[in-house]
Amino acid sequence: MMPIGSLEAGPRGTIADVAGVTVGHCTLAQGAVQTGVTVIRPHDGDVYRDKVPAAACVINGFGKSVGLVQVEELGVIETPVALTNTFGVGTIANAQIRAAIASNPRIGRDDPSVNPLVFECNDGYLNDMQALAIHEAHYMSALDACSADFECGAVGAGRGMSCFELKGGIGSASRVVRINEHVYTTGALVLANFGRLPQLIVAGEAVGRTLQTGANARPEQGSIIMLIATDAPLDARQLRRLAMRSAAGLARTGSVYGHGSGDIALAFTTAYTVPHDSDYIAMPPLVSDARLDPLFQAAADGIEHAILDALFSAETVAGREGHRRISLKDALRTRP
Amino acid sequence: MMPIGSLEAGPRGTIADVAGVTVGHCTLAQGAVQTGVTVIRPHDGDVYRDKVPAAACVINGFGKSVGLVQVEELGVIETPVALTNTFGVGTIANAQIRAAIASNPRIGRDDPSVNPLVFECNDGYLNDMQALAIHEAHYMSALDACSADFECGAVGAGRGMSCFELKGGIGSASRVVRINEHVYTTGALVLANFGRLPQLIVAGEAVGRTLQTGANARPEQGSIIMLIATDAPLDARQLRRLAMRSAAGLARTGSVYGHGSGDIALAFTTAYTVPHDSDYIAMPPLVSDARLDPLFQAAADGIEHAILDALFSAETVAGREGHRRISLKDALRTRP
Amino acid sequence: MMPIGSLEAGPRGTIADVAGVTVGHCTLAQGAVQTGVTVIRPHDGDVYRDKVPAAACVINGFGKSVGLVQVEELGVIETPVALTNTFGVGTIANAQIRAAIASNPRIGRDDPSVNPLVFECNDGYLNDMQALAIHEAHYMSALDACSADFECGAVGAGRGMSCFELKGGIGSASRVVRINEHVYTTGALVLANFGRLPQLIVAGEAVGRTLQTGANARPEQGSIIMLIATDAPLDARQLRRLAMRSAAGLARTGSVYGHGSGDIALAFTTAYTVPHDSDYIAMPPLVSDARLDPLFQAAADGIEHAILDALFSAETVAGREGHRRISLKDALRTRP
Amino acid sequence: MMPIGSLEAGPRGTIADVAGVTVGHCTLAQGAVQTGVTVIRPHDGDVYRDKVPAAACVINGFGKSVGLVQVEELGVIETPVALTNTFGVGTIANAQIRAAIASNPRIGRDDPSVNPLVFECNDGYLNDMQALAIHEAHYMSALDACSADFECGAVGAGRGMSCFELKGGIGSASRVVRINEHVYTTGALVLANFGRLPQLIVAGEAVGRTLQTGANARPEQGSIIMLIATDAPLDARQLRRLAMRSAAGLARTGSVYGHGSGDIALAFTTAYTVPHDSDYIAMPPLVSDARLDPLFQAAADGIEHAILDALFSAETVAGREGHRRISLKDALRTRP
Repeated sequence: MMPIGSLEAGPRGTIADVAGVTVGHCTLAQGAVQTGVTVIRPHDGDVYRDKVPAAACVINGFGKSVGLVQVEELGVIETPVALTNTFGVGTIANAQIRAAIASNPRIGRDDPSVNPLVFECNDGYLNDMQALAIHEAHYMSALDACSADFECGAVGAGRGMSCFELKGGIGSASRVVRINEHVYTTGALVLANFGRLPQLIVAGEAVGRTLQTGANARPEQGSIIMLIATDAPLDARQLRRLAMRSAAGLARTGSVYGHGSGDIALAFTTAYTVPHDSDYIAMPPLVSDARLDPLFQAAADGIEHAILDALFSAETVAGREGHRRISLKDALRTRP
Repeated sequence: MMPIGSLEAGPRGTIADVAGVTVGHCTLAQGAVQTGVTVIRPHDGDVYRDKVPAAACVINGFGKSVGLVQVEELGVIETPVALTNTFGVGTIANAQIRAAIASNPRIGRDDPSVNPLVFECNDGYLNDMQALAIHEAHYMSALDACSADFECGAVGAGRGMSCFELKGGIGSASRVVRINEHVYTTGALVLANFGRLPQLIVAGEAVGRTLQTGANARPEQGSIIMLIATDAPLDARQLRRLAMRSAAGLARTGSVYGHGSGDIALAFTTAYTVPHDSDYIAMPPLVSDARLDPLFQAAADGIEHAILDALFSAETVAGREGHRRISLKDALRTRP
Repeated sequence: MMPIGSLEAGPRGTIADVAGVTVGHCTLAQGAVQTGVTVIRPHDGDVYRDKVPAAACVINGFGKSVGLVQVEELGVIETPVALTNTFGVGTIANAQIRAAIASNPRIGRDDPSVNPLVFECNDGYLNDMQALAIHEAHYMSALDACSADFECGAVGAGRGMSCFELKGGIGSASRVVRINEHVYTTGALVLANFGRLPQLIVAGEAVGRTLQTGANARPEQGSIIMLIATDAPLDARQLRRLAMRSAAGLARTGSVYGHGSGDIALAFTTAYTVPHDSDYIAMPPLVSDARLDPLFQAAADGIEHAILDALFSAETVAGREGHRRISLKDALRTRP
Repeated sequence: MMPIGSLEAGPRGTIADVAGVTVGHCTLAQGAVQTGVTVIRPHDGDVYRDKVPAAACVINGFGKSVGLVQVEELGVIETPVALTNTFGVGTIANAQIRAAIASNPRIGRDDPSVNPLVFECNDGYLNDMQALAIHEAHYMSALDACSADFECGAVGAGRGMSCFELKGGIGSASRVVRINEHVYTTGALVLANFGRLPQLIVAGEAVGRTLQTGANARPEQGSIIMLIATDAPLDARQLRRLAMRSAAGLARTGSVYGHGSGDIALAFTTAYTVPHDSDYIAMPPLVSDARLDPLFQAAADGIEHAILDALFSAETVAGREGHRRISLKDALRTRP
């Protein structure tokens, strides 16, 4: 693909370039059921015991994600991040609770409860959401599949997603920057399910106006979930600033954050953890705010790149009632 | 009970004094399972088709409630309000989705999805939360039970809740005010599950320091959910202002919004609805912000009163592993 | 200039296409003093008596604007909008207070106070900010100059501003959309003072990487103020949604909302006013949120267009200590 | 005065119990001019060079304070905190800019600008605000007067303030808590100018209903500014949590955060500073969120105490047009 921005990518070109971050999918693809679950582990330990500094940014709140209230208050996540379809959120939250209890039997007894963190997009165009096909076991399956090598495109939670009336799904990218003589890696992963075709911009070119998909235009009912991981030492306030920069990358692909699109970003750092039940939080020296611009650029470029990666990785998928989303590659090939 | 503030209460003295608002419980009380579901219906129609203007205020975000992101963005609720325990949230969200689809079969197909709205407190002291005893049917049961006549105390979602190390639960109150020659009713309903005994203030008196419960002090892991209903015509921005005033009523009972307490308020109006899929939102004349002070007083006094109502209504309950919360009435009777 | 987006512009192609909106400048351009004041009047009446529904969105809060706390709480503005340099804010706030008192002698006595609304960018590269050259009279001068015909470029508050290391300043644009058989006009006006040259994107083309200005690169210390006016009937919550879309237009010019850039948007509607001291707020039927997408597109496209308008309108300016910003036109002409 | 809460106060019983914090006043009291300036220095160094971690919480945003946008984004303050009347804000902001430039001549040239931080209440009942009597020199005078020994009551910015229709003004208090074997001091300082007489609660007793002042009731146009200082190591996110607890202390004095009252809190820590222009921010180990409850109690109790201190410290003051606010002490003495 064409270069996005002028920063270098990491060796894998995915969020797994941030050391310790892994991704796993559970894909359901049978007839009218085209959906799934994707799990992102920020480290390979127990996230409840070693919480991960994080912050979210709601760009457009037409969304049903769970867990954000507590992330904003406490500045940490305490489960892996789960992505799924809109109607799977409650079930996956239950699965996260059960998994946390299995490892930490005091949760809900002497320990306070655990905060499930589940993001969603509406895959109802291709997937029969009313079938409520997502079960708790799918979370465990995606969790077990977590690896630094993972697929992008129409897999996991991305299986049934649409993007610019084309096939959307999971995309990922990374960027490496140098600040104060240190090298930091920033990774992006998106669940891309937003936009109308005429809006699509690819690396500055208004490609969407030149394509035809035969799909009937409908008001946008999509969404995008944008995850940013970094190994730079930042606190929750700074991570919220980083999360906000996803809005820039998103806009460069043509989005204006449509009314019906739940556009939500979460940024986390792997530079340190916050132990459960500690008296103090030991903090590394944080990158000064005045030095953050390269990370902001990396976040914006990474998100733009990850969205295009989703579009270029996804294959054409057919789903419920004859609905079909063709891939960007197919659409480009048959461009009039 | 002693008067709280100088405003008059409505005839029932509950949130049901706001015309159309009804409340129903489903209570689970058997051995180590002491929990339940409470549903508040803002009107007796289909809330998805006739959405209710609303706004939330997060006073302390150590909480796992779902639905708030979209309420903040769109300023409406589109399901009845559900209360339950922390680990029941996902299941009740699923039940709300299923109930909405049953009445509106286009949801998730041609219509966008529905936004479940579930609030929770942690009843793990009395209730075996790990049993995950809340099922979807309990939501329907509470919904079907909705009535303007409803019980307070250790019922529904309040069954297992603790408040100031005493028995907490559901409480309700109302206030009637006159603004611009109109009479408006404001109702409050709380799920009270917060506070440590020495903090308890009853109508200005530091009662908590004079009581003994024999309970071992633990760091607070409670929460309070505070609902405010009004028939005054307000928009979402003004309803957020109203919701914020619950912090004043809460503080007057002794709370300082403890770290582990998810203190969340939601205010809604019954003065108008926002039809699904309309081109325009017809708005009544709104009460001017400069005239809101009586409503602010009603919200604060109503919440204080509702918390005390929960404490005075709840009976002593025994739950898991011999845990027991005595009622305020019993505690006062045996005061040294 | 090249078309930005596919929506039509209004007849003037400026924010003054929204009926009633006028703009005036007071420009100070002598030697090391290169600064000024710009005033935007939302209507030609007394804004204190007929307040204007409005909402702000802080995209990056490295800024010293005044008045936003109250705008967020009350959802109205009650003075004309003033733009100036960072060190002129206090003085212009004083001027707004004095002007409001002159028309409303009860302010600060029986009436509550007035909320000045002043936005700023840092023009310290060209302008000797330490000279504190902005005086109260400059506000009155800009106010008196307000007209539907106004200049863009290096005028008023834009006089000393830099944008992508080129000459920035005031830019404006408009878009016309049809919703529910009604035609609505949305206007944008920016004070553009942000960005580093290599970031500049013009209508999708990464022009900035092809230009040379000879300027020494410095960390960004800029900012952008983005105003959106519309005649569509929206409430404050919806106007905040509109203001947020400015982030998309801004990003498409290359910004990633740099750390040192105070990126702030304000949206207001001329569809109705909120009278001072009324008992009720009479509301027109509001455009439904589900119909807002054309307005969101208009806001994003309008802001992108207005920024480019600032760049293409501004002439080369020399200021303090030999500093000089060349115009985009000059830079393009001498492109290697 | 009666004890407020059960925590111990520090030796001075003021915000100056937090080591390094000093307070100075400049009082204008002649005829119809009854106003002033109060300055709080968080440490005795240059706050621009050694910035102070801080966060604000807007409880009710009917206020004209300046500087909060940047405090929220960056989590630091970079000037001393100034308090004055509503119409003095612009002038004091100018004074802060001039003072910062005097010590740091690069500001506005090679350095970015400085963020003035000025809070205000409306003293228009006693003071002729339209006289615009506050001048820049009054800021320097208050700054020079800063000391760990300072007066409370009708002094400085508190000179013309009213509280519960009695004489309000400056009040202060402190609390000492032990967490993790460390002793931390938390101080509070308020500019109290809010409330209507019947609302007043003193240490749980509804004293206000028993008093008469002869004043004509008017809708509240007051405000309160609440400052919390602590030597506990907290980051900006945690300081915002601390600031929020001021709402509890405020409520216990009878406030319901009236519409016209700008109720704003700022919390800062003296445990570390953030050097200007550093590459990294060195962070001490932070107190874990799970251990914050004693600090939350100290903040709430301290604010309640500081408000009562303002009421008990202030002497009766007469101002413009025969307006007069009697002291709480005088009102209690003449209670019917």
